[in-house]
Amino acid sequence: MTHQISGVHCAAATPVTADGAPDLALFTAHCHALLEEGCHGIAMLGTTGEANSFGLRQRMALLDGVIDGGVPAATLLPGTSAPSVADTAELTAHAVRSGAKGVVLLPPYYYKGVGDEGLYRFYAGVIEAVADDRLRVVLYHIPQVTQIPLGHELIARLLEDFPGIVCGIKDSSGEMPNMEAMCRRFPQLGVLAGADPLMLPLLRMGGAGCITATSNLRADALRVVWDGWQDPARAAEVAAAQARIDAWRTLTNRHVQLPTVKAMLARSRGNPGWLDPLPPLVELTEAQRQDVWDEMDRLGG
Amino acid sequence: MTHQISGVHCAAATPVTADGAPDLALFTAHCHALLEEGCHGIAMLGTTGEANSFGLRQRMALLDGVIDGGVPAATLLPGTSAPSVADTAELTAHAVRSGAKGVVLLPPYYYKGVGDEGLYRFYAGVIEAVADDRLRVVLYHIPQVTQIPLGHELIARLLEDFPGIVCGIKDSSGEMPNMEAMCRRFPQLGVLAGADPLMLPLLRMGGAGCITATSNLRADALRVVWDGWQDPARAAEVAAAQARIDAWRTLTNRHVQLPTVKAMLARSRGNPGWLDPLPPLVELTEAQRQDVWDEMDRLGG
Repeated sequence: MTHQISGVHCAAATPVTADGAPDLALFTAHCHALLEEGCHGIAMLGTTGEANSFGLRQRMALLDGVIDGGVPAATLLPGTSAPSVADTAELTAHAVRSGAKGVVLLPPYYYKGVGDEGLYRFYAGVIEAVADDRLRVVLYHIPQVTQIPLGHELIARLLEDFPGIVCGIKDSSGEMPNMEAMCRRFPQLGVLAGADPLMLPLLRMGGAGCITATSNLRADALRVVWDGWQDPARAAEVAAAQARIDAWRTLTNRHVQLPTVKAMLARSRGNPGWLDPLPPLVELTEAQRQDVWDEMDRLGG
Repeated sequence: MTHQISGVHCAAATPVTADGAPDLALFTAHCHALLEEGCHGIAMLGTTGEANSFGLRQRMALLDGVIDGGVPAATLLPGTSAPSVADTAELTAHAVRSGAKGVVLLPPYYYKGVGDEGLYRFYAGVIEAVADDRLRVVLYHIPQVTQIPLGHELIARLLEDFPGIVCGIKDSSGEMPNMEAMCRRFPQLGVLAGADPLMLPLLRMGGAGCITATSNLRADALRVVWDGWQDPARAAEVAAAQARIDAWRTLTNRHVQLPTVKAMLARSRGNPGWLDPLPPLVELTEAQRQDVWDEMDRLGG
């Protein structure tokens, strides 16, 4: 495992205050807890973190705030994407200056049906505008949301032109053949699974780890899998941990995923400040929330 | 026609400088020309204007700049959308303070499959954050790009809760039955066609006009249609103007539309500074450009 960015990463959810800003105190406490529960890093402000539902300044302030709150910058992988090169470069440069371990970058997601040349220019434009050797980019392949898949020819070109800087990809497509093909073709690229059940099979193919939503709730079990998967003596323990993760992940998908994760966090962290997402997402109904909480009890909270 | 926002509006393209910023001088000249050519207003920084490919500060500076350059603020309908309430409210408040006639607002376009309640909260959140009676909102229905259609129940709720503020919709779906249904159900809503061939049929249904890309090139003909469509004595003139618009619009769709419009503007305005779009869009090939220019000559420049 020689990837620059590897391990168990949480796609951390972001609690919001009544006025729609990130709740810094609650988020900072969550980050500290995630690291204690076993996360190697925190991929804050991704899709689960509602990055694109916050303003640019709110996003930069949240990153500054958690670092000020004692969360090591070297554990942070913020999402710094916006649809424009200009704003993405600004957020990314800010993250690099903050000492973040790396950034996770979506393709520009407004126009559809765009080609590799335009996507290449977007990523190259951001990297060249940031112009900092410390920059580490994790590409973000989530075509079911962006409608913009990141193809292998594009990845090859970025790896060739920005070696050491483009160093990972989060694959949230759920397609193992795509992850396997990337592991084989791009040994220098750390492939990170976007779903908890896929980390273990991906590690067996030479993948670098994961960035997942369920680790907001069950980072402990995911870390057991990470630590033990190569040790035959721990096979039963690893299998049990994986089964536990999978059950929790299934529960996060019982209703719309992100509000469900937030409802579950309200219960596991014991704080109703977790319940509300920002528009355009909406919170679970009371009945849905109770249903999810009952199921958490059944799974052994 | 008692709509607050009505007439022929250009979805103005935005020329860019070598460093990817809006070319203010070229854009200001274009706006003045568009008004002279017959536009009632300029819907700057929309989809054709590559709004989302510019940074937030670049967008605000461009609006300030054209107003400083003598373009009447009361003719301007800037797109002020971002995926977050926070940034959309900031851009929108800036436009209102600038004296813009109104703003054009996309739904938040990152998450897919979101429901009316979340979309309502997004628009309501922006309007309440701006908190200015001068605000005039044109909703923007372009589901082929956003993947987020604006349904009639959502529109009804926004019209009821924000009467006078939500006052129009740009429908770029191309679906006349949708436009007709909106004209019937919401007489207070100015329905603006997003495509040139549809303005005339829409006007006959009680629509308010259009916001179109081809008016970057043929606002003169579109204005003839607007001025003459109710006058039986001008029927032949109107039909000829409509045919001319339609032919030009067909040409804009010969290759990817926006780079084609920019190539055509480079020719019609006699300035190669128009040629380049921002990532993720790319310019036409030389062969494509020549092909389009030859066709312009054939259509009678």
